Amino acid sequence: MGLKFELLKTSGNARRGRIYLPHGVVETPTFMPVGTNANVKLMTPKLLDEIGAQIILGNAFHLYLKPGLDVFRFHGGIHNFMNWQKPVLTDSGGFQVFSLREGRKITEDGVLIRSPLDGSKHMITPELSMEIQHAIGSDIVMAFDYCAEPGISHQDAVVALELTSLWAERSLKKLRSLSDQAIFGIVQGAFFKDLRLRSAKEITSMNFDGFAIGGLSVGEEYDITLDMTKFTAPLLPENKPRYFMGAGSPKLIVDLVDSGIDMFDSVLPTRVARHGQALTWKGKLNIRSAKYKFSKEPIDESCGCYTCKNFSRSYIRHLFDRGEVLGQILLTIHNLHFMMDLSKKIRESIENDTFQELRGEVLKYYA
Amino acid sequence: MGLKFELLKTSGNARRGRIYLPHGVVETPTFMPVGTNANVKLMTPKLLDEIGAQIILGNAFHLYLKPGLDVFRFHGGIHNFMNWQKPVLTDSGGFQVFSLREGRKITEDGVLIRSPLDGSKHMITPELSMEIQHAIGSDIVMAFDYCAEPGISHQDAVVALELTSLWAERSLKKLRSLSDQAIFGIVQGAFFKDLRLRSAKEITSMNFDGFAIGGLSVGEEYDITLDMTKFTAPLLPENKPRYFMGAGSPKLIVDLVDSGIDMFDSVLPTRVARHGQALTWKGKLNIRSAKYKFSKEPIDESCGCYTCKNFSRSYIRHLFDRGEVLGQILLTIHNLHFMMDLSKKIRESIENDTFQELRGEVLKYYA
Repeated sequence: MGLKFELLKTSGNARRGRIYLPHGVVETPTFMPVGTNANVKLMTPKLLDEIGAQIILGNAFHLYLKPGLDVFRFHGGIHNFMNWQKPVLTDSGGFQVFSLREGRKITEDGVLIRSPLDGSKHMITPELSMEIQHAIGSDIVMAFDYCAEPGISHQDAVVALELTSLWAERSLKKLRSLSDQAIFGIVQGAFFKDLRLRSAKEITSMNFDGFAIGGLSVGEEYDITLDMTKFTAPLLPENKPRYFMGAGSPKLIVDLVDSGIDMFDSVLPTRVARHGQALTWKGKLNIRSAKYKFSKEPIDESCGCYTCKNFSRSYIRHLFDRGEVLGQILLTIHNLHFMMDLSKKIRESIENDTFQELRGEVLKYYA
Repeated sequence: MGLKFELLKTSGNARRGRIYLPHGVVETPTFMPVGTNANVKLMTPKLLDEIGAQIILGNAFHLYLKPGLDVFRFHGGIHNFMNWQKPVLTDSGGFQVFSLREGRKITEDGVLIRSPLDGSKHMITPELSMEIQHAIGSDIVMAFDYCAEPGISHQDAVVALELTSLWAERSLKKLRSLSDQAIFGIVQGAFFKDLRLRSAKEITSMNFDGFAIGGLSVGEEYDITLDMTKFTAPLLPENKPRYFMGAGSPKLIVDLVDSGIDMFDSVLPTRVARHGQALTWKGKLNIRSAKYKFSKEPIDESCGCYTCKNFSRSYIRHLFDRGEVLGQILLTIHNLHFMMDLSKKIRESIENDTFQELRGEVLKYYA
C-alpha cells in the first residue's frame, strides 16, 4: 500500500524508524506541525522547509467546510493547493466529534456535527471522511473514530469503542476502494485498560498501515495519559508506525518516545508562540516579560533558527509590546525549529543509546 | 556630511540618481517601505531584502514612545535593534502634529502631543526630535516640521510655514551638534503657491542634505497634490535628493517622478495587502472575490515574487476567507515586491528615455 516502514533501531522502548511516503521520507520519532486550514499559522512552506518539517497535518473536517472538496479536486490535492511538496497527514474529523460536542448527534451511521463557521449541520460518516481525505490527497489518512471525553462512564466508553471499531472497518474498506493512500487505525477505549486492550486487539486485527493512540491528552491527569500509553503501545505491532494524537509538550514527547511512540502532533508550539511563549533548551520563556527589555541575548543561545541567529529578546519583546505580528512570526519559527531540533536530537540519541540522558535533560527543564 | 548624491541622468523632468549613505547605496527613484514600529508589518528583514527594499522608514515619535530611547542607545541604534543593515530614514514626528490633532498644543517651542498608546502628553521640540533620531541612528534624519491640515486658511498656513522654517533651523543646528547624520529639510506652505515659494526659498537657503515636500497627499484633491508638486519641485536644488512624503499609489508615483521627485513612501501597499488588495501590472485585484475560488493563476503572472512564483489566487483567497494571517503575509510580500519592481522599471525607463511609455502603461491601469 502507500507506506513502507523501517524500524532502524531500538533503545529501551524508544524506536528509531523511517517511513516512506509518496511525497517523501519521514524520519521518526518526529513532531508534526499542525496546519488545520491548509497552512501552518504564520508559516510559509519555505519557512517550514527551513525549520526542517518533514510532514504536516491537515484537518479533514475543516478543509471539507472550507475551501471544500471541489477546490481540492480542482487543484489535484492539498500539496498543489498550498504548494507543500512533502508528506501530509490528515485527521479524519474524529477529533471534532470530541471538540464540537454542542448539538452533535451520534448514530451508528456517523456523526451529525455543527459547523463552527456558520452553525450548519453536517453528517460525517466514515465513508464521507474517506472521500474527503481522498480528495485532499494526504499521504496518511486517519480512520474515522469516536474520540470520547474525559469522565465518560465505562458503559459509554464501550459504545464509543464499538463504534470506533465498526467505523475503522468501514473506513478501511472505503479508502481501499478509492485509492492506495496509507491509512492508520485509531485505538480508543478512554481511560479503561480493559477497553484499551479490546480496542487495540480489534483495530490491529485490521490491515492498517500504522496505528494511532487516540482519546488521550484531552484534559486528563498527566500520569493517566502516560499510564494508558505505556499500556497500549506494546499492544501495537512492532513493524508499523505508532502515532500519539495530540502531544506537543517537550515533557510528554520524551515520555511518549520512551513508551515506544514514533509520531506526535499538536498546535501547542505554534499557539503558545502567538502568545509570547518560547520553548528553549532551558525551559519555557515568556518574551513579554519586562526583564527582557535590555537583553541582547537570543531566545535560546544554543538554537540555530533564523530568529535566534538574527534577533534579540529585547527586539522580540518590543514587537509583542506593540502588538506587531512579526513577533508572533519570529516565535513561531523558533518554537517549530525547537520541536524539529528536539525530534532530531531524540533520533540521534536513540541511535547512540543516549536517549535516557536526553530525556533526563528535557525533564529537568520541563516538569 | 552623511550623504552623497549623484544625479546620473534626466529624462524630461524625471531624474535617475544615486544616494550614498552609511548603510548602503540607494538607487533613485525609489519607493521606501514604512516600518513605523521598527518593523515593516509582517515582513522579516530577510523578506525585505529579498523583495529588493533599499531603504525603509521608521517613525521617530512612535519609537520614542516605544521601545524608548534607552533601548536604542542600549543597542546602538535601530539597525542593530531590528537587524536591518541597510539604510533607514526616520520622520521627525512632524506628521504626528498633523495626525494626532486631538489635544495637541502648538507653541513656538514645539508641540504638545498626546500619546496614542496611553494618552500621556509629550512635548516634542525640534531639539528633542533630533535627539530621538540621533539615538535611533537613522541614515537620513528629517527636520521637525509643522504639517498643516487641508482646509487651513492662508493666515494659519503662514504661521505653520514660519514655525516650519524656525524649527528647520533649530533642527539643523541641533543635529549638526550631535552627529554627522544626513538631514533633509521639509518644504510646507499648504495649498498656496506663494507660501510654497516662500517656504522653498527659506528651507533651501539652509544647508540640508536633501529636501522633502511635506503637507501634500493629506486628503486634498489629486490635481492639487500634483499641481503643488509640479510647482514646488523645480524650486529645489538639482544636486540634492527630493523626497515626496506619503505617496504609495502607482499613479501618484509615476506622476511624481514625472515632476522630478526621487523618493516616496507610504503605508498604502502594505495596508491594502492586509485587507486583501493586490497591486498588479494590470491594476488592483481584490483577492477576496469569489471569482478566484477556482483560479490557478498567480496574483500577477508577470511578477517574480515568492508569492506569485508559488501560490495561486485560489489558495490566497482561501487564506483570507479563513482569516489566516499567512494570506496577509503573502500579499504584503507581493505588494512590496511590486513597488520595488515599479521603482526599478522607472529607473530603467529613465536610463532608456522610455519613462513616458512606462508612465502611460501604469496610468492605463491606475486611473
